[in-house]
Amino acid sequence: MDILAFDFGGTRGRCCLARADGTHGEVVSLARAPEEDGARWLARLLGCGRELVRAAGPMRGLGISFGGPVAPDGRVISVHVPGWETVDLPGEMARAFHLPVSIENDANAGALGEHRFGAGRGTRYMAYFQVSTGIGGGVILEGRLYRGAHGLSGEFGHMVMHPGPHAPQYATGKPGNLEALACGPAIAREGRAALQSLGQAAPPGLTAKDVFDAARAGASWALAVREQAVAQLARGVAAAICAYDFERVVIGGGVALAGDTLFVPLRAAVTQYLPRYLEGKAEIVPAALGDNAPLLGAVVAAAERT
Amino acid sequence: MDILAFDFGGTRGRCCLARADGTHGEVVSLARAPEEDGARWLARLLGCGRELVRAAGPMRGLGISFGGPVAPDGRVISVHVPGWETVDLPGEMARAFHLPVSIENDANAGALGEHRFGAGRGTRYMAYFQVSTGIGGGVILEGRLYRGAHGLSGEFGHMVMHPGPHAPQYATGKPGNLEALACGPAIAREGRAALQSLGQAAPPGLTAKDVFDAARAGASWALAVREQAVAQLARGVAAAICAYDFERVVIGGGVALAGDTLFVPLRAAVTQYLPRYLEGKAEIVPAALGDNAPLLGAVVAAAERT
Repeated sequence: MDILAFDFGGTRGRCCLARADGTHGEVVSLARAPEEDGARWLARLLGCGRELVRAAGPMRGLGISFGGPVAPDGRVISVHVPGWETVDLPGEMARAFHLPVSIENDANAGALGEHRFGAGRGTRYMAYFQVSTGIGGGVILEGRLYRGAHGLSGEFGHMVMHPGPHAPQYATGKPGNLEALACGPAIAREGRAALQSLGQAAPPGLTAKDVFDAARAGASWALAVREQAVAQLARGVAAAICAYDFERVVIGGGVALAGDTLFVPLRAAVTQYLPRYLEGKAEIVPAALGDNAPLLGAVVAAAERT
Repeated sequence: MDILAFDFGGTRGRCCLARADGTHGEVVSLARAPEEDGARWLARLLGCGRELVRAAGPMRGLGISFGGPVAPDGRVISVHVPGWETVDLPGEMARAFHLPVSIENDANAGALGEHRFGAGRGTRYMAYFQVSTGIGGGVILEGRLYRGAHGLSGEFGHMVMHPGPHAPQYATGKPGNLEALACGPAIAREGRAALQSLGQAAPPGLTAKDVFDAARAGASWALAVREQAVAQLARGVAAAICAYDFERVVIGGGVALAGDTLFVPLRAAVTQYLPRYLEGKAEIVPAALGDNAPLLGAVVAAAERT
């Protein structure tokens, strides 16, 4: 039987049917719903889920990936979308579908997905960094998801790497945290600032991808912005390696799609920030499942629960 | 039966007989040997151990706390004392005493000691920061010592918190790491610099303790140095909490003996560097076992092995 899985991302929601065994996971059919406030968004996605189930028949379980902290009791805290605080998300899902429900923070789900089906296969000590709208992290220790004392482990994006009066702030985080320095919107912000300092107008809607594309094409403003972003991200990755002694760090999310233009300088910079005896101990690799990592991780969580 | 335990610290060696059960550990008799190069130091401590054993009779096991990284095969890397690279420390100990040998990095041993007998009792997710000659860390997860993929977890002192061309460097670490900013000798270095910038001669051998004493007495130069050191240490502690989601952080080593003059501003500063949903989740407390934490941790490791 299949698993019904939901992905409440920072900026969009998706719902899928998936098949999973110990080594392979597959999204069978997928529906999307636009972001609105939490309660209305939930209603839209519930509708999508009902249609998928109607077409497919009985499900084994239901998994949720949520783009924000998830407390051990399943309560969710969203830093991007208002209205979630009053929603009992796992409870609503259980009532709507009469299925056992698992819920994970999206970075934890991404870690589970990449570990079981993607770039983390075969490792026992792995971190997953999701670098996109924000920076989230998930941790696999001894082959299992490590959640921490309050379900809040792996918050690498909130490590304050650059404090001080001029530290940038992002969303609800503290000034100078890794997220404010190296997530997608932060890289875009620095790109716009670099162009403006050259007296050039930044294209409206400039993204981190545009910055990496311009760097690959050799634009000096973009190379400087990339160098800074890579150095900050490297310091965060190196700090995570110092803390945990991982064997592999998998980097996913939109920013990781930049490929070698990110990973080649990133690997060199991480080495620069590690003590000699930790140099080269952890591989730094791109995620393999792309957008589907959290969704497939929610499937893993649901399959293991049932 | 008793346990024979050795503590090879950054700057001194000790050997003891100890008694331990599940909740209580006690140093029965203790001998010290001065630091020289690794091989000669080892010979001196072996002599101390033989005398203790001769007086006490058969031992249950032998535990070692070592002030530097310990590989999974027991090989040690010293960053302070030359000559260890060629010494098979656990092997020499096993041959000398015909006992089962356990060896742990000193911060891991300190974490074990504080968790079992000291300020970490009753916790399941705990960090131990040893702030003295350097900054080491040990991690307890789900009630057990967490070692990482290569026995190198908890290297919080090596997280690079303040990079750049003017970043201070300490021992063999990378410039701007937490150790170079907030360990005892780093605080003393900043104290000397502060006095010199006021045109005052720093007393020879000024220590971190002198800086904290002067801050407690209200000296403005010392308050400024303390504020900086506390801010850096707080950023490291907060980064560790973001990474692991601990319920308690125990801070030991010589610097932690400063008491409230350290811990009151430290707790406030840690909060400042955590995302709101992690504020107050982890207690920050001084170690309870003082100097004996690594020694008693070595006893725990040996007792659990036998």
